[in-house]
Amino acid sequence: MATPHPYLPESLSLPHYVPNTMTALDILVPFFGATAVILVVCLLIARMYKLNRSDTSVFLWLVSSGLIHSILEAYFGWNNRVIAGQSTFLGQLWKEYSKADSRYVGSDPFVVSMESFTGFVEGPVCLLVAWGILQRAPWRFPIQALVSFGQLYGCILYFATEYLSDEPVGPFGDPLYYWFYYIFMNGLWIIIPSMCIYQSVVRSTQAHAFRRANNVKKNS
Amino acid sequence: MATPHPYLPESLSLPHYVPNTMTALDILVPFFGATAVILVVCLLIARMYKLNRSDTSVFLWLVSSGLIHSILEAYFGWNNRVIAGQSTFLGQLWKEYSKADSRYVGSDPFVVSMESFTGFVEGPVCLLVAWGILQRAPWRFPIQALVSFGQLYGCILYFATEYLSDEPVGPFGDPLYYWFYYIFMNGLWIIIPSMCIYQSVVRSTQAHAFRRANNVKKNS
Repeated sequence: MATPHPYLPESLSLPHYVPNTMTALDILVPFFGATAVILVVCLLIARMYKLNRSDTSVFLWLVSSGLIHSILEAYFGWNNRVIAGQSTFLGQLWKEYSKADSRYVGSDPFVVSMESFTGFVEGPVCLLVAWGILQRAPWRFPIQALVSFGQLYGCILYFATEYLSDEPVGPFGDPLYYWFYYIFMNGLWIIIPSMCIYQSVVRSTQAHAFRRANNVKKNS
Repeated sequence: MATPHPYLPESLSLPHYVPNTMTALDILVPFFGATAVILVVCLLIARMYKLNRSDTSVFLWLVSSGLIHSILEAYFGWNNRVIAGQSTFLGQLWKEYSKADSRYVGSDPFVVSMESFTGFVEGPVCLLVAWGILQRAPWRFPIQALVSFGQLYGCILYFATEYLSDEPVGPFGDPLYYWFYYIFMNGLWIIIPSMCIYQSVVRSTQAHAFRRANNVKKNS
């Protein structure tokens, strides 16, 4: 008989489920520790390249979120069907997160599609834009706007599909799972990308207005 | 006993289902007729505003797709739970389209979320950008890139979620339903937005490069 699993709905079939050997803290401490190291390294790089304050903030965000996408979410996209039975660090991380949203461990088609696009496309593009910031590349703002909108729209659909779902997908009474995993960890991807989109659109609009004012080429 | 419905899977519960009184042609002729009228009117407006060829093409696309989003898809987002029982023109249109993808008539959470965002947000923004083209607004390319990427990403997720779905959602053997409704009518929203994104990114990159070359403000 299959091991009983902690996810909702109880009818979710996970015959390959293996319980986590790590506690929530065993998973969260290395995750936030690694994120802190990345942020410090990025801060040093930003200083070295003499980035101003707003470019430094966006650079830190794009590297850290780009690495989260390219490692955690690409791993999920690739392994989602077997994750319930895995005991790797990332397997256990996704089994822990699934306590807030069982669509992960259950390979929900929307979650798998959105996370795969995020992991395999948006992750590398975030890192590319971070490099573009260091290079002061002229394509930086147009591409930053696109990848940030991808993050924002993916996250809007993520919340909306959960809201519209007929079946409960999480024990939403638990404050750690609901407020920290579900609301806070995803809410960041609503707030920060919105700010990055705003910055990009304003800067590109200014560039077009400048070019227009200097009347070089019509319609630019 | 509920009327049997023509959608897959057969287990889909639609107790309120009422068969269409209109044939596929009764629906497609007014739809494409109205689209043709809109395109002709837009062509006249584009001439009046002396738009060049590429701006004319994008203007025609944004007005027609913006109206489709704001009327058809907003209607779906608002009414999806009752559409199976409706006999309005738009209700019958969605019941007809659902023969290619029953997630519409079945209020699939992803389809409802994506179509609602498309209808209520992207539709009006398409029309705003079309107006921006006539005004040669400096925000035109940055916003065109965002709304086109919203269309593209929504459509990628639309195809991906169907592909990953465990249950059949359409009688995919029928050429009208599969090739025309599902592949062609959605494929347009992959191809044309990709071209609009490319144009916007190139133009914005040129504007940033121009501004940089003229050295007005660093990091622009």
